[in-house]
Amino acid sequence: MPAFIFDLDGTLVDSVYQHVRAWNTALTECDLQLSVWRIHRRIGMSGGPLVRALMRELGREIDPDTTERLKRRHAEEFQSLLPSIRPLPGARELLRELSDLNVKWTIATSAAAADAAPMFELLGVPPNVPVTTRDDVDRAKPDPDVFLTAAQKLGVDSSDAMAVGDSVWDMLAARRAHFLSIGILAGGYGATELEQAGAYRVYADPDDLRRHLDEVGVREEERT
Amino acid sequence: MPAFIFDLDGTLVDSVYQHVRAWNTALTECDLQLSVWRIHRRIGMSGGPLVRALMRELGREIDPDTTERLKRRHAEEFQSLLPSIRPLPGARELLRELSDLNVKWTIATSAAAADAAPMFELLGVPPNVPVTTRDDVDRAKPDPDVFLTAAQKLGVDSSDAMAVGDSVWDMLAARRAHFLSIGILAGGYGATELEQAGAYRVYADPDDLRRHLDEVGVREEERT
Repeated sequence: MPAFIFDLDGTLVDSVYQHVRAWNTALTECDLQLSVWRIHRRIGMSGGPLVRALMRELGREIDPDTTERLKRRHAEEFQSLLPSIRPLPGARELLRELSDLNVKWTIATSAAAADAAPMFELLGVPPNVPVTTRDDVDRAKPDPDVFLTAAQKLGVDSSDAMAVGDSVWDMLAARRAHFLSIGILAGGYGATELEQAGAYRVYADPDDLRRHLDEVGVREEERT
Repeated sequence: MPAFIFDLDGTLVDSVYQHVRAWNTALTECDLQLSVWRIHRRIGMSGGPLVRALMRELGREIDPDTTERLKRRHAEEFQSLLPSIRPLPGARELLRELSDLNVKWTIATSAAAADAAPMFELLGVPPNVPVTTRDDVDRAKPDPDVFLTAAQKLGVDSSDAMAVGDSVWDMLAARRAHFLSIGILAGGYGATELEQAGAYRVYADPDDLRRHLDEVGVREEERT
């Protein structure tokens, strides 16, 4: 039976555009001008690689103090936008259905535990689900560590693990972990980009995936 | 010599994410819940087709009063976000360089004249450029009318006209007008999506296009 390891932002909760806005505000306050689409394309990476990628695109170095200020201001702004964040359509239902089917699942995110906690609550993640956050690993996405740690916590190996994510960084981390991967359009990437990055299938949102679980190897007859 | 007909939002000015935010606020205020990426994918259409597309995605009708309220609240919110909008990198320089090269160019947008005016100012569009807005046509993009009207105002025919845009709706309108089209990534679409929709070439932003004008048929030796 496959086991599902879900990304969080843009995959289960509709929070990518709030992350874009929070980084944009942080950059503007630090007098760093960057086109907004370039920020959007980096969401899903952890803060460190994201700031380094933005540095390359800005064509200049950012000193460690400014890097810290950027990360802090992003976190504060994102926190202030939390009330506008909702689960994606079908997210809660998908997780509940997988539990009902006795299919193992968990969440593996590049977000810090403190940022992820209110979203786990929004999704109704039961306390016995062994989630993995930035705090559990040395290197978050696009390194494979969060996915590998999540699989280990679930007790599944790479031939049963399916990574579900909205960004090409999820697909990269999944390939390095030797997991099959499933793309979700709700982060704003196009289907072809996710397929080219390695997605075995692409669905619009959790609701769309929920209605096609048979396509990714879930056997309904095993429902308890 | 080719003539260039530019889309405005996401092509010359970095305003797509502000449009997304303005529509999202308007929808939320009208108790209409829609994932943010679905709004993003509709930017570049005029308001009427956009609201109809959102209705299909919401799976319900929106009455004419609510439609008007949505459009009004989007316009008001977008207006309030104007101070955060900047030209895209190289936009002013590209337009100036085309003028220096005696290459005809203009702007053709689905935005209303009142919404577009502050952005024309931001870009330094000279008063003798015959721009086309929502106000000049019965049907804005993805119908071809804004592009066709723009070509007529420039006095160029379809074999010389190059439409430059960031969304698949620009590519659709360009194909219906029998113009070649050039994609710009700054609206947040991926390159493959724009190519599949008909883009002859795709550039990151106006600066990238400016450095590759020879690839789209501009002859530098004709510089005056």
